[in-house]
Amino acid sequence: MSQRKLRLGAFIMATGHHVAAWRHPGSQADAGVNIDHYIALAKTAERGLFDQVFVADSPGVWHQGGRESLSRQGRLSYFEPVTLWAALSQVTSHIGFVATASTTYEDPFLLARKFASLDHISKGRAAWNVVTTSAENVFGNFGLEAHPDPATRYARAHEFVDVVKGLWDSFDDDALPRDPASGVHLVPEKLHELNHIGRFLKVKGPLNIERPPQGHPVIVQAGSSEDGKELAAATAEAIFTAWTSLAEAQAFYKDVKGRLAKYGRRPEQLLVLPGISPVIGRTEAEAQAKWAELQALMHPAVGLATLEPFWPGEDLTKWALDAPPPYIPEAPRGIHSRAQVVLELARREGYTVRQLYEYLAGARGHWVVVGTPQTIADRMQEWFENGAADGFNVMPPVLPQSLDEFVDLVVPELQRRGLFRTAYEGRTLRENLGLERPASRYAQPQAKAA
Amino acid sequence: MSQRKLRLGAFIMATGHHVAAWRHPGSQADAGVNIDHYIALAKTAERGLFDQVFVADSPGVWHQGGRESLSRQGRLSYFEPVTLWAALSQVTSHIGFVATASTTYEDPFLLARKFASLDHISKGRAAWNVVTTSAENVFGNFGLEAHPDPATRYARAHEFVDVVKGLWDSFDDDALPRDPASGVHLVPEKLHELNHIGRFLKVKGPLNIERPPQGHPVIVQAGSSEDGKELAAATAEAIFTAWTSLAEAQAFYKDVKGRLAKYGRRPEQLLVLPGISPVIGRTEAEAQAKWAELQALMHPAVGLATLEPFWPGEDLTKWALDAPPPYIPEAPRGIHSRAQVVLELARREGYTVRQLYEYLAGARGHWVVVGTPQTIADRMQEWFENGAADGFNVMPPVLPQSLDEFVDLVVPELQRRGLFRTAYEGRTLRENLGLERPASRYAQPQAKAA
Repeated sequence: MSQRKLRLGAFIMATGHHVAAWRHPGSQADAGVNIDHYIALAKTAERGLFDQVFVADSPGVWHQGGRESLSRQGRLSYFEPVTLWAALSQVTSHIGFVATASTTYEDPFLLARKFASLDHISKGRAAWNVVTTSAENVFGNFGLEAHPDPATRYARAHEFVDVVKGLWDSFDDDALPRDPASGVHLVPEKLHELNHIGRFLKVKGPLNIERPPQGHPVIVQAGSSEDGKELAAATAEAIFTAWTSLAEAQAFYKDVKGRLAKYGRRPEQLLVLPGISPVIGRTEAEAQAKWAELQALMHPAVGLATLEPFWPGEDLTKWALDAPPPYIPEAPRGIHSRAQVVLELARREGYTVRQLYEYLAGARGHWVVVGTPQTIADRMQEWFENGAADGFNVMPPVLPQSLDEFVDLVVPELQRRGLFRTAYEGRTLRENLGLERPASRYAQPQAKAA
Repeated sequence: MSQRKLRLGAFIMATGHHVAAWRHPGSQADAGVNIDHYIALAKTAERGLFDQVFVADSPGVWHQGGRESLSRQGRLSYFEPVTLWAALSQVTSHIGFVATASTTYEDPFLLARKFASLDHISKGRAAWNVVTTSAENVFGNFGLEAHPDPATRYARAHEFVDVVKGLWDSFDDDALPRDPASGVHLVPEKLHELNHIGRFLKVKGPLNIERPPQGHPVIVQAGSSEDGKELAAATAEAIFTAWTSLAEAQAFYKDVKGRLAKYGRRPEQLLVLPGISPVIGRTEAEAQAKWAELQALMHPAVGLATLEPFWPGEDLTKWALDAPPPYIPEAPRGIHSRAQVVLELARREGYTVRQLYEYLAGARGHWVVVGTPQTIADRMQEWFENGAADGFNVMPPVLPQSLDEFVDLVVPELQRRGLFRTAYEGRTLRENLGLERPASRYAQPQAKAA
């Protein structure tokens, strides 16, 4: 029996992670704007004792490929994450909420405020997935002339996170005595202006909401580039990542944990959570049949569109689907950090065009495990006990169906093995994840006992 | 019996509208970040069949006066409105949610998105109170060198509202057939890029969420300046306003309704909702005693701070409290549009400094009615039936106590008189307010039958 427990997040993508999930009878086709669908998912994840639910996000229409592909993709219309989680906080009581928000396209004061508000509304269950936004098609929504390059985006992200944390510390934890008898509501010395002036941002403060219940909402990061790993090492408390082999996941785990010391941090202050997209059957054959059924729902136009970012400018519709791509490029500049992983795979495995897009569309470069609950638990246990993962970001291929199956079939198996909790330990997301509540930057260091 | 029904909004200010409300035993001192308090208020307002709940807002700390005043005011820390309403949408089923957001300090794409998200999450119960932000102490939070002047703010507001409405129309109502059998999710011709390039804003679009259930969330406006009235006439469907006499309210009502025609709009497309702060007793004497009790909780430093915006640069602590102000200025440039109302009052009534700040702190220049449920209903009926109001924005002086009293005592009296509904009529806020669902700007005009 392992004493260390694995952490589980449910990575919710509207109709499911498979690109054709919306056509599957186990999905909800209008999921993106169906609040009842999300209520059911959050309750299921909480029934399964998940630490958190998570949504990815981009401040623009997610769209790859031409007209044909656009018409056949199910991910165009969806809730804004923070409003969604605020709503779901009222129909759940334990699960945490990870909302994605962009340091490139949002404003730090408004962002700090909405996450602090969510943390208060949820009584300490908020987390911020810090992204710099990789999509090229977003800048026009914000009046910019171009999408900033990765180095600029990450430099801004470091400054932005620091500003947001500073704003969260505007009120000391004991700034508001609110004593009706004396009439003293606030101790003015315990309210702080940030007065930040930096390379990218100028922010006065204070924030107009007191310190969040968790001190700071949990900070999450998901980029695997060099810049992404440094941002995670400097600021993140959990990192979402995408690996398809144990060796790669182990190397990443060691790499990113090894970067913490230079920021004065300990390895246990950053949880590494690889993605896993489980296709669950009561038998191996049933699981394989489910996966084949899902892949058959994918239109070639949609499949090819998932490859376009890797071959920019190329007309992929002219390629033979059942031959390998005519050439394998270097990862194009500016696209997401999973690109390198995918291109390596194409090179190493000699995938055909169809195999490659079927691989990608399955979980967009994440790890797909097709099998019985035991098989899936075996693989998770292997990664967890061999330096590759502190837990997993579970990516159900079809929603709500695949999340129900995971909670009903895989969670009990993990519990039987002593790998996963049988009840929530704490009240806040930090407490459940085993993360410390950060002190305010304005707090006086406690005098140590001699 | 009147066929026309009055509209009621509950204007919720954390601990209550009275500046000393947080010291009153009928209030919740930590109301600003107490979600259970807001849940109870929303449920009470819904029990009272209110059309909507409303919160004011500013993207910065609301603070008047020096250290003494700062320490004694109860309005420094509060929820962000859209996250708050998203949460409360899940514990209510009929009431509408009016969130304030600034066209000066927010981004139109992110604002359009969060309100569209709220409208979907609440199933058609969202409204946006469009403000240009009057507070001078906010610009530093957004890296600006100064607070823009009113003319610039209002010019931007017109453009901003137009952009937001355009983004809400990104998807036609029938853009998403989501047909699993054919695999067609979207009709690409029914998704529109805005491609706006204007004086202040450049926004490409489309928005990444489909058309809100209400077409557009209801548009609310609250400024009473010339610029404010024009913005309301051009764009608003409800206007919140502050008058203390029937004659003034009638003049305003006629003025603003008269401005609609030039924008091609009919008078019934803009609801005029004056504020009323009711202090309710079972007898007149009980009501007066309640009011006196509340006024006695106000510290002079807090009272004087409410006068500071009218006498900028003046050290008010040197003034005798029980004499009239030494001079009455013109309304200083850049402060809120109620300033003129307040200065008129000081001039006309010969108020002492104390009387003036007690008047202001009671409901910040809004209409305070102290009396029995019958008296309060009399006054509301008088305004409603004499061209001064289509309904009211009810401003409870102490929360939750005063809202409970209004719902338990005044609402039944209004119902007995046939002035107010006895059940919700519709499913959406628009339906309850009797407002049409707007057509998309991309909709083809229907061919009229010959």
